[in-house]
Amino acid sequence: MDCLFCKIAAGEIPSTKVYEDEQVYAFLDIEPQAPVHIILIPKTHIPSANALTEENAGVVGHIYAVAAKLAKEQGFAEKGYRIVNNCGEDGGQTVGHIHFHLLAGRNLGWPPG
Amino acid sequence: MDCLFCKIAAGEIPSTKVYEDEQVYAFLDIEPQAPVHIILIPKTHIPSANALTEENAGVVGHIYAVAAKLAKEQGFAEKGYRIVNNCGEDGGQTVGHIHFHLLAGRNLGWPPG
Repeated sequence: MDCLFCKIAAGEIPSTKVYEDEQVYAFLDIEPQAPVHIILIPKTHIPSANALTEENAGVVGHIYAVAAKLAKEQGFAEKGYRIVNNCGEDGGQTVGHIHFHLLAGRNLGWPPG
Repeated sequence: MDCLFCKIAAGEIPSTKVYEDEQVYAFLDIEPQAPVHIILIPKTHIPSANALTEENAGVVGHIYAVAAKLAKEQGFAEKGYRIVNNCGEDGGQTVGHIHFHLLAGRNLGWPPG
């Protein structure tokens, strides 16, 4: 499939890997918006949050559990972080493979964009 | 438990309900940051994303599936939306019960706070 994030997860396009397991791949955003800016994606191609159903959404919970684990391992769990999913044009989604931004290392303002 | 969102989910504190099922309660944010600004919470008390594990994170996937359903029902799925979780002080978390902001109805900027 001609999907940038599928290719990154498969190692066909290079990325700075942060974490990987059977379901999830995580890597550094190349345009970081905070001192820590990790992108977490399911290896399965899901185009966006609009495509989530009770059948395939389990991976989202797993991704959040992985994010919490990375926060502890990287030492920013206590100070805090923000997890953001963009869906569609109004959400600012730029790659058609669902992904979750994990931002930390600075005080994140409100509103969130 | 002396938790604002547990009391909202239990109907002990009033809110403008958008959706409810056995696991999830959704209501309008009283300080909306976009034309659509819904808060989705698990009925189970989970303090923050830091408390998510493989055992309890399933509800997060369910919440995302509910958000996608609400987006379709309310007519903003196609234009898009953003889902935000704040954890801890740097994330901007203000209530100690995990919650997900669903924002739509305007073009959400980048960075997300």
